[in-house]
Amino acid sequence: MIISANNLYPNDLTLTAKPIILLTNDDGIFAPGLQILYDSISTFGETWVVAPDKERSGAGHAITLTEPLRVQELDNYKMSNAFQCSGTPADCVKLAIQNILPHPPDMVISGINQGANSGSYVIYSGTVSAAVEGMISGIPSFAISLDSHNSPDFDFSGKIARNIAENIVRNGLPEKTILNVNIPSGDIDDIKGIKITKHGNSMFHDSYDKRLDPRNRHYFWMNGKRAVIDENDDVDNEALKQGYVSVTPLKFNFTDKDAMSIISKWDLNI
Amino acid sequence: MIISANNLYPNDLTLTAKPIILLTNDDGIFAPGLQILYDSISTFGETWVVAPDKERSGAGHAITLTEPLRVQELDNYKMSNAFQCSGTPADCVKLAIQNILPHPPDMVISGINQGANSGSYVIYSGTVSAAVEGMISGIPSFAISLDSHNSPDFDFSGKIARNIAENIVRNGLPEKTILNVNIPSGDIDDIKGIKITKHGNSMFHDSYDKRLDPRNRHYFWMNGKRAVIDENDDVDNEALKQGYVSVTPLKFNFTDKDAMSIISKWDLNI
Repeated sequence: MIISANNLYPNDLTLTAKPIILLTNDDGIFAPGLQILYDSISTFGETWVVAPDKERSGAGHAITLTEPLRVQELDNYKMSNAFQCSGTPADCVKLAIQNILPHPPDMVISGINQGANSGSYVIYSGTVSAAVEGMISGIPSFAISLDSHNSPDFDFSGKIARNIAENIVRNGLPEKTILNVNIPSGDIDDIKGIKITKHGNSMFHDSYDKRLDPRNRHYFWMNGKRAVIDENDDVDNEALKQGYVSVTPLKFNFTDKDAMSIISKWDLNI
Repeated sequence: MIISANNLYPNDLTLTAKPIILLTNDDGIFAPGLQILYDSISTFGETWVVAPDKERSGAGHAITLTEPLRVQELDNYKMSNAFQCSGTPADCVKLAIQNILPHPPDMVISGINQGANSGSYVIYSGTVSAAVEGMISGIPSFAISLDSHNSPDFDFSGKIARNIAENIVRNGLPEKTILNVNIPSGDIDDIKGIKITKHGNSMFHDSYDKRLDPRNRHYFWMNGKRAVIDENDDVDNEALKQGYVSVTPLKFNFTDKDAMSIISKWDLNI
């Protein structure tokens, strides 16, 4: 089933009402990538911003069960309808939909993340998880990330975000699908085009720095870098490396059918 | 490719060396379900325990990037080789493999969780994510959860954990697959058997309590319950409701191939 991004005007290119769009991220409400997303989308939709009050990179799909959450609207800020929340990106989306927005959003957009979310990074990504949370609530959702950590220029990514959002309003999205969009770093003129890609296997090879604190006690700090994995051209991180914008449709049913028949042959009686 | 749980004795039922097994959970190192898991597995394998120093339910696949991690071995405790860690379940598995265990484990077991992890709970579950982290490191891994929150009796679940672990040593596991095991609540005599199941759609219908703190400021606390979704008998939560132990093989490549062809028809040029 295709679900529409705008229940009022599912197939009407000449929108007479703006779609209501929830923006969030995992780099925190003051991240420049979120501001560019806001600037790009707020002229197109009625935007609401609910984002973590601090960086929550690597939050995965964490939700906060054991502690209360705080929400505060930012007054006189350069984004309107902007709320900071003490929770994770997934918390922000849940709370936004249920308690903050006056009406359910037609779309959730998460980003623009500083750093690509391809391959196994998708599993750890708070950016992607916020979009997944939108999808779980039945709302067309996408995540968008820029493959750059150093002084990133988000302008082109903002244009891509706007283009994807317009396409979702125009076409809807298959139910239970999110889009995971990644933008190559570097000069806009070097971008070769847009590829619809598969979720790949590139992964984070992590390690830990073991250090001593001023009281001579050990602590560990995660370190690491992306492992180079040779993959086909149609895979997320490979397309990105080759200079393409990567758009990967993701679904979150994890059944491993091949393994089901293998496990069925085990002796599981006790 | 089937990966063995014990590289030394992949097909030898008369093991002469114990498999090295890492135990973890998301309810915290002092949770009774972890203790039962330890009691059940430590007579079979060389066990190491690395678990969060406090409850991390709902941690999903969060990892800790922005803060340091602390690790402390528990002295004279009823579990040997037991370490508490200030991080998430996924952090515990990463740190255990890379910095705590003297040799890589042959298997990772996460649980026994208090409360089922079926349907969309899988996405939020720290228990399942710890097993996923083991799988990402190439180690056969499974998660095990008991569908009970009130005074749970974990004894039968401990026996199932042992049985699954023995099967993994005997048979290996398909690469990139984890097993998600859920045990019904109630009397052991009422358990009807074991079913190999699919990952279902049952979900958490959450809401937030909006409360006032003693200083008259608002805070939100997550609340909710599992939504009843009618599904086929071969789906995780349905099998559990009918009194079966549910064993679901899960894989974590999220490509939505049907959606790829749909999105390919969009006009994505800007």
